[in-house]
Amino acid sequence: MTKQRIGIWIIGAWGGVSTTAAVGLSALQKGTTGASGLVSENPFFEKLNLAKWDQFVIGGHEIRDTSFVDAAKHFSETSGVFHPALLQSVESELKAFDQNVKPGTLIHVGDTIRSLAGNSVKQYDQETLQDTISRLSADISEFQQKHDLAHVIVVNLASTEPPVEESAKTLSLDELKQALASAETSPVPASTLYAIAAMHAGCSHINFTPSAGTDLPALVELAEEKNVLHAGRDGKTGETLMKSVLAPMFAHRNLNVMSWVGHNIFGNLDGKVLDDPVNKSNKVHSKDHLLTEILGYKPQTLVSIEYIESMGDWKTAWDHIHFQGFLDTKMSLQFTWQGTDSILAAPLVLDLVRFTEREWRRGDRSGVMSHLSSFFKSPMQATTPEFERQYQQLEEWANKVSEESQSS
Amino acid sequence: MTKQRIGIWIIGAWGGVSTTAAVGLSALQKGTTGASGLVSENPFFEKLNLAKWDQFVIGGHEIRDTSFVDAAKHFSETSGVFHPALLQSVESELKAFDQNVKPGTLIHVGDTIRSLAGNSVKQYDQETLQDTISRLSADISEFQQKHDLAHVIVVNLASTEPPVEESAKTLSLDELKQALASAETSPVPASTLYAIAAMHAGCSHINFTPSAGTDLPALVELAEEKNVLHAGRDGKTGETLMKSVLAPMFAHRNLNVMSWVGHNIFGNLDGKVLDDPVNKSNKVHSKDHLLTEILGYKPQTLVSIEYIESMGDWKTAWDHIHFQGFLDTKMSLQFTWQGTDSILAAPLVLDLVRFTEREWRRGDRSGVMSHLSSFFKSPMQATTPEFERQYQQLEEWANKVSEESQSS
Amino acid sequence: MTKQRIGIWIIGAWGGVSTTAAVGLSALQKGTTGASGLVSENPFFEKLNLAKWDQFVIGGHEIRDTSFVDAAKHFSETSGVFHPALLQSVESELKAFDQNVKPGTLIHVGDTIRSLAGNSVKQYDQETLQDTISRLSADISEFQQKHDLAHVIVVNLASTEPPVEESAKTLSLDELKQALASAETSPVPASTLYAIAAMHAGCSHINFTPSAGTDLPALVELAEEKNVLHAGRDGKTGETLMKSVLAPMFAHRNLNVMSWVGHNIFGNLDGKVLDDPVNKSNKVHSKDHLLTEILGYKPQTLVSIEYIESMGDWKTAWDHIHFQGFLDTKMSLQFTWQGTDSILAAPLVLDLVRFTEREWRRGDRSGVMSHLSSFFKSPMQATTPEFERQYQQLEEWANKVSEESQSS
Amino acid sequence: MTKQRIGIWIIGAWGGVSTTAAVGLSALQKGTTGASGLVSENPFFEKLNLAKWDQFVIGGHEIRDTSFVDAAKHFSETSGVFHPALLQSVESELKAFDQNVKPGTLIHVGDTIRSLAGNSVKQYDQETLQDTISRLSADISEFQQKHDLAHVIVVNLASTEPPVEESAKTLSLDELKQALASAETSPVPASTLYAIAAMHAGCSHINFTPSAGTDLPALVELAEEKNVLHAGRDGKTGETLMKSVLAPMFAHRNLNVMSWVGHNIFGNLDGKVLDDPVNKSNKVHSKDHLLTEILGYKPQTLVSIEYIESMGDWKTAWDHIHFQGFLDTKMSLQFTWQGTDSILAAPLVLDLVRFTEREWRRGDRSGVMSHLSSFFKSPMQATTPEFERQYQQLEEWANKVSEESQSS
Repeated sequence: MTKQRIGIWIIGAWGGVSTTAAVGLSALQKGTTGASGLVSENPFFEKLNLAKWDQFVIGGHEIRDTSFVDAAKHFSETSGVFHPALLQSVESELKAFDQNVKPGTLIHVGDTIRSLAGNSVKQYDQETLQDTISRLSADISEFQQKHDLAHVIVVNLASTEPPVEESAKTLSLDELKQALASAETSPVPASTLYAIAAMHAGCSHINFTPSAGTDLPALVELAEEKNVLHAGRDGKTGETLMKSVLAPMFAHRNLNVMSWVGHNIFGNLDGKVLDDPVNKSNKVHSKDHLLTEILGYKPQTLVSIEYIESMGDWKTAWDHIHFQGFLDTKMSLQFTWQGTDSILAAPLVLDLVRFTEREWRRGDRSGVMSHLSSFFKSPMQATTPEFERQYQQLEEWANKVSEESQSS
Repeated sequence: MTKQRIGIWIIGAWGGVSTTAAVGLSALQKGTTGASGLVSENPFFEKLNLAKWDQFVIGGHEIRDTSFVDAAKHFSETSGVFHPALLQSVESELKAFDQNVKPGTLIHVGDTIRSLAGNSVKQYDQETLQDTISRLSADISEFQQKHDLAHVIVVNLASTEPPVEESAKTLSLDELKQALASAETSPVPASTLYAIAAMHAGCSHINFTPSAGTDLPALVELAEEKNVLHAGRDGKTGETLMKSVLAPMFAHRNLNVMSWVGHNIFGNLDGKVLDDPVNKSNKVHSKDHLLTEILGYKPQTLVSIEYIESMGDWKTAWDHIHFQGFLDTKMSLQFTWQGTDSILAAPLVLDLVRFTEREWRRGDRSGVMSHLSSFFKSPMQATTPEFERQYQQLEEWANKVSEESQSS
Repeated sequence: MTKQRIGIWIIGAWGGVSTTAAVGLSALQKGTTGASGLVSENPFFEKLNLAKWDQFVIGGHEIRDTSFVDAAKHFSETSGVFHPALLQSVESELKAFDQNVKPGTLIHVGDTIRSLAGNSVKQYDQETLQDTISRLSADISEFQQKHDLAHVIVVNLASTEPPVEESAKTLSLDELKQALASAETSPVPASTLYAIAAMHAGCSHINFTPSAGTDLPALVELAEEKNVLHAGRDGKTGETLMKSVLAPMFAHRNLNVMSWVGHNIFGNLDGKVLDDPVNKSNKVHSKDHLLTEILGYKPQTLVSIEYIESMGDWKTAWDHIHFQGFLDTKMSLQFTWQGTDSILAAPLVLDLVRFTEREWRRGDRSGVMSHLSSFFKSPMQATTPEFERQYQQLEEWANKVSEESQSS
Repeated sequence: MTKQRIGIWIIGAWGGVSTTAAVGLSALQKGTTGASGLVSENPFFEKLNLAKWDQFVIGGHEIRDTSFVDAAKHFSETSGVFHPALLQSVESELKAFDQNVKPGTLIHVGDTIRSLAGNSVKQYDQETLQDTISRLSADISEFQQKHDLAHVIVVNLASTEPPVEESAKTLSLDELKQALASAETSPVPASTLYAIAAMHAGCSHINFTPSAGTDLPALVELAEEKNVLHAGRDGKTGETLMKSVLAPMFAHRNLNVMSWVGHNIFGNLDGKVLDDPVNKSNKVHSKDHLLTEILGYKPQTLVSIEYIESMGDWKTAWDHIHFQGFLDTKMSLQFTWQGTDSILAAPLVLDLVRFTEREWRRGDRSGVMSHLSSFFKSPMQATTPEFERQYQQLEEWANKVSEESQSS
């Protein structure tokens, strides 16, 4: 039996996380890197018979004019990741992926992201909403045909958009369709337009960013209509991962968290975009709501995200947690997390794609994959905010899928 | 219906943790302190109908000559905990508890602990092993009768002993009985003698220290013979609690922990005892085995515990975790935990007593309470080393007990 | 020979730093506390024959309605400093000092500070500028006469004002006098009005805050006209002290500081005032200019000051310094400073008063005391920004004064 | 005028610091790296007319069998420093330096260092002491002649030896000469034998390690007899540099340091050698004495140095400083220093060589260069332990030398 090929279509294809995923996938295909950082490589999931790394092909949409090779070199120089020897060894693979990248859209992305746009994407500035969706959808279908792909999974890795307008949050699918057909300005942001295009093309959709994507009632409806799988929002990689791991400890020990202060500094492109207060507000909200959910009360919180150029992709978070123990005694925990954002995020993207493909392979399944909650800061339809319990849900899903396949 | 009274009999009664528990229990009885730090006060456990704080009375064994009042004052001065007003408000309660404290035993405690002994305990230096056990057991029974206690729970809070001899680890109950009847030197350490005395008196037993206590095959047998409950070892309060919370995150994210360095500094009596390398080895082992169990491999580890006088009871732990993520990229997490040891430990002692009383109240139950694993660094008969999963076991037990009582 | 008595007149008398200074001075007078934290108690300065602690009396201006005793109790409860026994022992001294506190003025203090004002000060809301200065000055003179004081030193410890208007920075003394005589609104902020009143009363003046105070050309002129001593601005107690100590190391080792990020969290009244962005800007500037002066270039810097209520007076600063060493290698230094603001500042106030009195005792001296630069974040007429070199200037001054007194 | 050529003869030539110095010197000669980390490139020293980088040639003694190229590659791989492109660009220079490296000696180096020895040096195991010194001295002279060097400066960068025997500390020069002529075992360690050989060859000597080197009365005598310059001991690069910068702040602010705990973790060859307790004791002492000197009293101190393999050359130091301020309030400062040892040390070696050459060029100067104290943990004949004051001595020396050369 020949192995099926699977497509990964990335929105924000030449960004840091995507480039790292492309470099990493290539290295995995060549066997020149190990399993570190890949959840799906945990021994527990062996029974799932997940797709092999060499089954995957990368393509995507992008608004800047660059390439995987150039982005990877730039990244290697500013952040000291990717050994030059590694980059050299995967250069031809990256060039092949570059052939699959098409111009995206600038509709509703906000001024800061627009300022990064290259010429290729600007040619579409006068497009109608319907034409944009059709074009984006056609790009994916063409990719699927050209590479003979059994399934394509669209992953949003583009920079954080400004928060979605309130009106979009109550829009029904019918209303959305009407608005897209007639309105001058889009009722939903670019991330959602990409998601619509993906669903029209029959693709699964993963939203790894804080942008709206499929996290709107109309899109949840559309997913059911189109019978596609989706999950999101906002990959949980560093400080928030720590919060979802530590806050349950304070809750279960009944240690009263009085204040939780978190300062994040980093210097990659994402950081530049987040330096725009409009875009930042979206991100900060995604990092902040968690504590109240886990603790059951709202401590004083402070989350700052600051662009410090010298840091490159190395995100350093300092958190100060001030808590009250027995006899009202004040104590504290501080942590400093030093990790590179893209290196932490990229393997999760590959994991999500792999787990999604496996769910798709079960057949006739659609809607939100809430068993993937452990991967997200603001998981859609999550039933628990605690990392460890979310991870148990992934294990339980794996047990079920594995039993299913053994009994069939 | 009058509420039953319950005894808490503490080995190491006038130590820091015990004194804090006594101060805290008194304040809880008077309603002058809140629930912070008490696991059993989490809303989840309301359905258990746990014993009220005013049902408890404290007594215990001790080898030094001091008192709850003096120990609390000393503690308040060197560590800045216990507001003087609080201490004053509970002085009469502490004095009443002082009446219930009896001399312990110095058998097999090691030179460092022996050097702390007062005159009261030294009068028993020539006692036989059998006489010691009988005396200790009689002390508890007298306490029970005098205060008309429905049940007594013995809690070991004494300083860490040297590691138990290998021979004790394979001793059967019969062999132990023979040895106690005839041998000149005790085949088991003081902590185990206290546990035997407790079981003879029909008490439940909690071992909050790294010392052997009931964690020997012969004692597990004895618990069944005497039909008593027990649990241990070594309260999980600070750095190790953090390890049992953080290590699962690294494991589940497949982040390869290369090294985990932990430095602990503090300046209380426990710290002085642990400055003796023999006693320390017992503690370090208890803090170190966990990582291998959770990660599934052994990273390079280093655990230091150092006595720094100026710190008083404030234990400061600095941990440096060096891990490898995707594409073999090295990253790090550091944390600094600043907490007072006794303030963290004392409420757990009260929680353990309360949960144990509830289990005893179910009737006809004996053996190791493995649903209390989340409280211990080295839990006996634990089925999982991860804090969150251990805590879930406590919740599941609570659900079962609650259902049971509703159906009865 | 009877010892002369010296007055300390504090603007912001019932604030945290002032209250701590009052408690500390009383304890020093009673001999119930040691020399820790007092620069003037360093053995090096023994030769100066500084005034003894029992020579000092405290009075001052204040806009809130409280007292030293109440402020100290509140402070002890929220921040855990001042042992209750200590407070009790100095209560009568504090009550005596309370008799010397008069209402200040609300002119030009900004909305946030005004919101804290009590009734006593509001009665003067309609006063003319001239009347205000006369009243404030008369308060000090009355204090001096009543207590038979050889000299009075006015110290500004009031909360940070908004930045001074540009026009004030070029005002000559004559222009200032005219404006004060005729203008409806004050050309200078409250801190400067207090300083004028002080100089009119023949007092020395110390500005321990970032507010303008005497740091305006017109005031420097006035000090010469009135023949009085002064020094300022902004006591150097925590994070900025660290900067003035660490930055020279980076400079002298030619380690290129790429970025210096400093986050400060604390929860006292000062923090509340600084939560007003207008007041904060003044403070941040005072903390930030230093690095460029010492390094000779401007690294990317970030200084945040955030009000976190649970911290009380405990100011915790986390600084992340990212620097480039040989072969352009990036390295980092992080520090966490945990100190109570008032406990750090108060002894410096007493030191400054003592050193100022000594300079005044030399006779016929006026103008800025630049040998006190090591005490200030933004020292007036400083010749070097490095802490160690500033401290050497204090030592050199001490040597000169000591030689002078030996030769006379 | 042709520029004179100057030799740098390094003991431990193929170690981490030396290799970094060789790579760095080559890059400086090619102009492919900047001045970061080089003290002598501070603008203040421009007036000194220091030797240019292209005037220097490197040679040395070594006990292992490797090369600059191999050592640099290994270093680059394990620690992520030296960009591969940089290494490639200087490969021919490194190969030329390799030609100048000769076998050293294993006399008295301790078992741990001996275990690292290669075959080349073992051939000399039977040599007499006199023959060893003559051979080592001849190696240097040959290097000087071959490269037509105006002056050679010998720098000890070898791994830390065990502490010197007490008897060596009182030996006069005559006694040393007699012992070397007749004794079976050397009265002084290898570092001192190398220093004797250097002096015999008329070289200046810099001891960058904690080993004895020239820090013995007999060697101080010998330097005068041979009319040579020397300086040492133990380069001040990381944690101790921080101590010499921070301790004066505590001293001058009269903040009572109760305890200073420092934990160092790193994983380079030096770390492996220091894992031998005998070698470590020498290092720890060198790091510890400083505090008492600066503070004027001895706080409780703890210095640990631990070999953690994953860290490579990245030395991470966590220091916890517990101090008492006004009214006996306990506060703390923690810092985490993350730097690569060799990258911090290597430029200082080049600086020391440059400053030494300049002092030698003044003519007819000999003995200890105490104006270089700021470079050392345990500076010989230092008059002050404070970094900033030591640095001022360097500035004062530069002023003097500069004036001298202008007036001549």
